[in-house]
Amino acid sequence: MVVAELDGTGVPVVRLDPADLPGGVALSGEYVHGVFQGHLSAYGRIVSMSGLRSVWVRRPGLPASRVAEPSAWLTEEARQAFYGMLRSTDARWMNHPDAARRARHKPWQLHLAQRSRLPVPATLVTTFPQAARGFAERFPDLVVKPVSGAHPQEPPMAVPTSRVAPGTDFSAVAYGPTLLQRRVAKRADIRLTCVGDRIFTARKAVTPDADPDEVDVRFAGGSEPWRPVEAPPRVAAAVRTYLRDAELAYGAFDFAEDADGIWWFLECNQSGQFGFIEMDTGLPIARAVAEWLAADTVPAAPGTSGNGAGRSRVRAGEGRGHEDA
Amino acid sequence: MVVAELDGTGVPVVRLDPADLPGGVALSGEYVHGVFQGHLSAYGRIVSMSGLRSVWVRRPGLPASRVAEPSAWLTEEARQAFYGMLRSTDARWMNHPDAARRARHKPWQLHLAQRSRLPVPATLVTTFPQAARGFAERFPDLVVKPVSGAHPQEPPMAVPTSRVAPGTDFSAVAYGPTLLQRRVAKRADIRLTCVGDRIFTARKAVTPDADPDEVDVRFAGGSEPWRPVEAPPRVAAAVRTYLRDAELAYGAFDFAEDADGIWWFLECNQSGQFGFIEMDTGLPIARAVAEWLAADTVPAAPGTSGNGAGRSRVRAGEGRGHEDA
Repeated sequence: MVVAELDGTGVPVVRLDPADLPGGVALSGEYVHGVFQGHLSAYGRIVSMSGLRSVWVRRPGLPASRVAEPSAWLTEEARQAFYGMLRSTDARWMNHPDAARRARHKPWQLHLAQRSRLPVPATLVTTFPQAARGFAERFPDLVVKPVSGAHPQEPPMAVPTSRVAPGTDFSAVAYGPTLLQRRVAKRADIRLTCVGDRIFTARKAVTPDADPDEVDVRFAGGSEPWRPVEAPPRVAAAVRTYLRDAELAYGAFDFAEDADGIWWFLECNQSGQFGFIEMDTGLPIARAVAEWLAADTVPAAPGTSGNGAGRSRVRAGEGRGHEDA
Repeated sequence: MVVAELDGTGVPVVRLDPADLPGGVALSGEYVHGVFQGHLSAYGRIVSMSGLRSVWVRRPGLPASRVAEPSAWLTEEARQAFYGMLRSTDARWMNHPDAARRARHKPWQLHLAQRSRLPVPATLVTTFPQAARGFAERFPDLVVKPVSGAHPQEPPMAVPTSRVAPGTDFSAVAYGPTLLQRRVAKRADIRLTCVGDRIFTARKAVTPDADPDEVDVRFAGGSEPWRPVEAPPRVAAAVRTYLRDAELAYGAFDFAEDADGIWWFLECNQSGQFGFIEMDTGLPIARAVAEWLAADTVPAAPGTSGNGAGRSRVRAGEGRGHEDA
């Protein structure tokens, strides 16, 4: 969707997957007389690294993972060469690998959301059974969710958020950090997608007959479609603060809307999908991504540095889901 | 050495290894009413995360690697809980995990060294055999070294820098990124260790009978000891610029001194050892690290943010060499 939009802008686009380095993807960079000059070759096409205007990171493959004899050593060599050079350019990133990696820490997300004045449901992350018991006494209606997100198997397994039954024995908390959160009795799920400084918000009402145990929108049945809504100005301002401090150019926020209309922060996924929202709502998110990537300068993009003026290319990493991690 | 120095300052120190989480190390953090309150327990001792003044990262173990049944999933959960919470504190880091990780990219190091106006020997990183051949014609006396540093086996294997023989066939460059660098005909190795804004420099003269093929000081025989020297003011200024831009509080720079007395930048290791320098030279590096960690505020430390005033604790991660990666 984004590449189709980019093609309409007339800005040259190169797509490559780091998994194809070395092979279909090749690189060369020279440091001579105080100057760095780099080139990338993607499936026969060569471009200068100084010509890169922006980099879109979308599920890049693990470097060197498609060679005849993959190894951890070759992957590390290819990873450092590829990202080390791209990091030396003036290109803007959506999102920069450092910011992307930091943004995955859920305890940090909660702290940043608090600091950005987003409402955060009472949450505990603990390995102390006694702390879990005390928390459950204060907040009897709880959900449990992973601290780190997806289970790191191949393909990654999503672990659903689940309700905690009353009287649960918390002894096993000692064996692994556990994230407990006050359950928000929600009347709708909110997905707010932020692209640079542009905000696209969609709302999915909970069906009247919904099972209250189905707390995870990713796994709930529900037949209500996503519908576009306006984000309240305070939420929009808080979201922009969050992304600026997180140094992210893109973020997909999940909120739970309660009976009072309060939007409770659940998480911000720096690589969250937007296609399903665009399909349901018609919100032009892919075009916004393309415009951000193609812009000569992005005046109000939170969390970006560097100046794209005078450059003329956009590249999109494209692969199977390994990040520069 | 550092802990012994810290003990002399009267500032409380807690040492822990993330490998012992969960187990000897436990944690708990609560996000309630817009406030984060966290606690760490290390081998029976509990401290408040808001009391952390600074964090010294020294070869931390892989989280959850000492449990009865280790798994990638538990490691990821423990990693995100531990580092996610520590990232939410105001503690200063030596070095911050994000800065540490970025600093390992050698192509980025070379670029940053150029930008900081440090002399960088002509270098090529390439997967194009033709580029390697052209480079070898322009710079016939070359060394080859890994792009990424240590070989990722357990324990990690150091790959020595080696001379490239004349007439070398560069065809295999296509199978893996290769770093070629003009060999500096050196008369001494320089190790410059920067702690905050304090610089400690040592020089090891090349023995007159040294084998010119022994280019890697880590593996060279040589009986000359390290001796303290003063860094030229321009080098000192450039090094501080480098660390500020790299957001590092600590860095160990390697230079090669040529016959004209020029110090050529080879690399900056953000976790470089300093004990062997201190032993040979008596330069008080461990004390400088301790003073940086113990300081209430660090006025001129490059690459640090946050204000340690009013807090009263220092912690040192300690383990077997896995980083927050």
